[in-house]
Amino acid sequence: MSNKKIIIIGGSAAGPKAAARARRMDEFAEITVFQKSNELSMASCGYPYYVGGFFDDRNKLLCTPAGVVRDPVFYWNAKGIMAKNNTEVLKIVRENKTIEYKNLLTGETGTQQYDKLIIATGASANMPPVRGIDLKGITTLQSMQDADFLRKIRDERTIRKAIVIGGGLIGIETLEALHLAGIELTLVELLPQLLTFLDWDMAKLVENYLKTKTNVITKNGVAEFIGEYGNLVGVKLQNGIEIPCELAVVAIGVRPNVRLAKEAGIETGAAGGIKVNEYMQTNDPDIYAVGDCCEIKNLITGKNVLAPYGDLANLEGRVAGENAICGNVATFPGTIQTGICKIFDYAVGITGLSETKAKENGFDYEKVINASPDKPGFMNGKLLITKILADKKTGKILGAQCLGPGDVSKQIAIWAVAVKAGLTIDDMVNADLPYAPPFSLAIDHSIAGAHILQNKMRGFFNGISAMELKEKLERGDKMFILDTRGPDEYEQTRLGIGEHLIPLGALRKRLNELPEDKNAEIIAYCKISLRGYEAAVILKAQGYKNVKLLEGGISAWLYNKEK
Amino acid sequence: MSNKKIIIIGGSAAGPKAAARARRMDEFAEITVFQKSNELSMASCGYPYYVGGFFDDRNKLLCTPAGVVRDPVFYWNAKGIMAKNNTEVLKIVRENKTIEYKNLLTGETGTQQYDKLIIATGASANMPPVRGIDLKGITTLQSMQDADFLRKIRDERTIRKAIVIGGGLIGIETLEALHLAGIELTLVELLPQLLTFLDWDMAKLVENYLKTKTNVITKNGVAEFIGEYGNLVGVKLQNGIEIPCELAVVAIGVRPNVRLAKEAGIETGAAGGIKVNEYMQTNDPDIYAVGDCCEIKNLITGKNVLAPYGDLANLEGRVAGENAICGNVATFPGTIQTGICKIFDYAVGITGLSETKAKENGFDYEKVINASPDKPGFMNGKLLITKILADKKTGKILGAQCLGPGDVSKQIAIWAVAVKAGLTIDDMVNADLPYAPPFSLAIDHSIAGAHILQNKMRGFFNGISAMELKEKLERGDKMFILDTRGPDEYEQTRLGIGEHLIPLGALRKRLNELPEDKNAEIIAYCKISLRGYEAAVILKAQGYKNVKLLEGGISAWLYNKEK
Repeated sequence: MSNKKIIIIGGSAAGPKAAARARRMDEFAEITVFQKSNELSMASCGYPYYVGGFFDDRNKLLCTPAGVVRDPVFYWNAKGIMAKNNTEVLKIVRENKTIEYKNLLTGETGTQQYDKLIIATGASANMPPVRGIDLKGITTLQSMQDADFLRKIRDERTIRKAIVIGGGLIGIETLEALHLAGIELTLVELLPQLLTFLDWDMAKLVENYLKTKTNVITKNGVAEFIGEYGNLVGVKLQNGIEIPCELAVVAIGVRPNVRLAKEAGIETGAAGGIKVNEYMQTNDPDIYAVGDCCEIKNLITGKNVLAPYGDLANLEGRVAGENAICGNVATFPGTIQTGICKIFDYAVGITGLSETKAKENGFDYEKVINASPDKPGFMNGKLLITKILADKKTGKILGAQCLGPGDVSKQIAIWAVAVKAGLTIDDMVNADLPYAPPFSLAIDHSIAGAHILQNKMRGFFNGISAMELKEKLERGDKMFILDTRGPDEYEQTRLGIGEHLIPLGALRKRLNELPEDKNAEIIAYCKISLRGYEAAVILKAQGYKNVKLLEGGISAWLYNKEK
Repeated sequence: MSNKKIIIIGGSAAGPKAAARARRMDEFAEITVFQKSNELSMASCGYPYYVGGFFDDRNKLLCTPAGVVRDPVFYWNAKGIMAKNNTEVLKIVRENKTIEYKNLLTGETGTQQYDKLIIATGASANMPPVRGIDLKGITTLQSMQDADFLRKIRDERTIRKAIVIGGGLIGIETLEALHLAGIELTLVELLPQLLTFLDWDMAKLVENYLKTKTNVITKNGVAEFIGEYGNLVGVKLQNGIEIPCELAVVAIGVRPNVRLAKEAGIETGAAGGIKVNEYMQTNDPDIYAVGDCCEIKNLITGKNVLAPYGDLANLEGRVAGENAICGNVATFPGTIQTGICKIFDYAVGITGLSETKAKENGFDYEKVINASPDKPGFMNGKLLITKILADKKTGKILGAQCLGPGDVSKQIAIWAVAVKAGLTIDDMVNADLPYAPPFSLAIDHSIAGAHILQNKMRGFFNGISAMELKEKLERGDKMFILDTRGPDEYEQTRLGIGEHLIPLGALRKRLNELPEDKNAEIIAYCKISLRGYEAAVILKAQGYKNVKLLEGGISAWLYNKEK
């Protein structure tokens, strides 16, 4: 029997992982990776941090941890994998199981046979279809060349004003990178919110923070790029405003590269990616597909989604690499679409469903917002704001969004394991997490969130979100708004929405200051709404029938404050 | 109907939480907390950090996040809870549901009735039964007074040499605190290892690190405290060695305070704590017990254990507080004994079973050690070493231990949720965790660990631990030891155990340097044993039948290195 022939199209993330796993499964298989660009196995998620100056050695994006550049020589010596870089695959000929390729440097063409083929063609950046898109000074941050271009701008300090188009993950990472390069920045987002995988209220908190660093414009797109002598000098927005800038980075999402697959009759799905089963196998049993070019199953909704994340690309590649050699033994069940993003001194992340997605998919959910620190005050604890969703009937956790200067990464990791495991809020209420003051509160932020949501689901309090309260205020609803903090806290900062200050410790003695009508609507809060909760409980016990707790308190207030 | 009378004995952690929860369940219940000491609801886990100078304001240990000291006035005003501090409960009289108490300041005594009683009497520090134990200069770090005493020593800089007796969590936290105070320290542990909840090999890695900061002596106890004029001047160890010191901190564990309960006929269990059911209820249906005075169920072994952790105390208190008011509606199912400890720039944690515990309890387990960074090199990733255990038949994760300068807290949190949820290693292989370079590798350290353990359980490689290899070396076993790193890495550091250096990239061309006998025992490794793994796979494919991978590579090597 001759050696197995494995061809992998794509050498960025999923492709090399598939190749490496295939090699470990079969030392004698003939494995070839075709890669259009010069670089192989780039740490492309690291580009913004290279541009931002978190490190200076470009090679770190291209090297093994031991410091060896992952070039074709490395692949051949260390892994016995033939890596053909600068080589484009032009065609998949399924009838005779070959691919046709062309070396982009030499123009040389050829065909090569496969027993199993793995497609890892990735995704391409969307570009706005407007005038001036070809001007010098407009780029994406998708390739090593893009990273080099932007890093040069950082190092040379020639540019004073730039615009980032698109408020998604890459847009915001790029924004931070260029801000650190001393450039004055404007972020433009077409939709009413940044980071559309978040709910509007959570995205608004991100936006509020981001505005302390750069200009942010939402609900506005680019109408035209304005040039002079072929160079970008400004951007005209859809509302007519012109913003002068010498650099524009476009980050309005990516679309899966499926042309090659489609031309060969490989099926794509409703989300626009290559369709695969849980073995990462396409409709052709000899062809697998992995990474950003695929669509995969969302494990909560059961629907296929595009999930162009570097971690999933690696996990998918590992599965396809094994199956290409061993037959379908390994599975990749799908995603809960966990993601995280650093934003200056904040981080923001999500796992599972947002409220928007839960609604879209017909879930009957309860939700809560929890604002509390990650660690004790004496250990310099930092604020976290988490929104948690659970199914009303089963109690199953549907998703969590978390942001703030605190340890968001641990919170999202906790919820990600819980969501994937199908845990309920009741399970999380007594979670046994690692506690010591340098790492968490005695009741970890995640567990506190579970407590609050459980309390709410058991009817111990009625919650109201900042958004809902704002709407009521704008409608002019009559309410008694109760701030339960101390006078000194009130002097420092306050909402200024007509609230009455009665510190929790004085509430039992000052009940006479509350409305006589026990049906009056009362909104209670404090800094994070723990004292607010206790106040709501007291008032309920006093017969007030319509007490609501402002969830997350002042910490999660999205709007302008009086002070 | 008159108001419910709830009495809580103990006002440190579990007690106040039970009281607060009871209050929120019933605004009109009469709730009294008896506390022997002056302070209430102290952040006692924070004492070492106050002593160590992480913060200077003592009040932070006693205040709410809003800065109000939790004294009886606060408890009455904010929570409507009567807190009787400096008051000892002398007797529980179950027959007429009363307790007898004595004010330790005024000598005043009294009795008080309860409908429901919650015992939260905590635990007391063990003291070695040796001569000189009453000398001045010997303390524990259990109370606010202890913390004040040690903090004063820090501030006055009067002490030059100190000894910490006991290498558990509190011993090591105290060690760090006093080291930061500029004191020359020796840690003495009676057992052959520190942190006995860890396996010996993991504890040895901690010990190796700790020895870069202070003196560490294991397998040796205190025989006598030596005094002059009533003051401690040294410690004599069991092996006869005398260590001069002016301060000794005893941290050899705690025992549950069960006298009061036992005298009232409340049952205690085999582990020595008060026995409770999942409602935290004792054998008397009107009496609950919570916190360090109880024993609770280990959810993996089903056996009762003492688990004196601050986080569990709070969760247990919450359950008992609710049940005391509402009847048995809330449950605390038990613990997986998750713990974590800061050790200078390292952290170390565990969740679930150690290998020692798994063996003791008759589990048929597989285990692996994974050494790899928490983040990419270009984001200043730091090493983590994790030991993971899974049940051989079911694949269920039994436990994980993690240490190093990397983000241990997140790792242990991930495994803690996985263990509690009953996830298998196969579940963790495709975990969907938050990935971005500032927070993790594309394949998170936990997922990489699951990959390695899955590979091992599927028979893809045979592992050998540093301990096992050391034993073989000491026995003089004939082996071919293969270091697969690069020559420059070899120049920097190497084991010096007779290894041959053949870099992975050259291995396929230098197979002739390996033993001719395909049955020869070969041990492969690299820095973290990823390249070592690939080498092992190559050699297996070449027909070598007895190839082993040194798990964790050089990073997890416990013993002296040549270089």
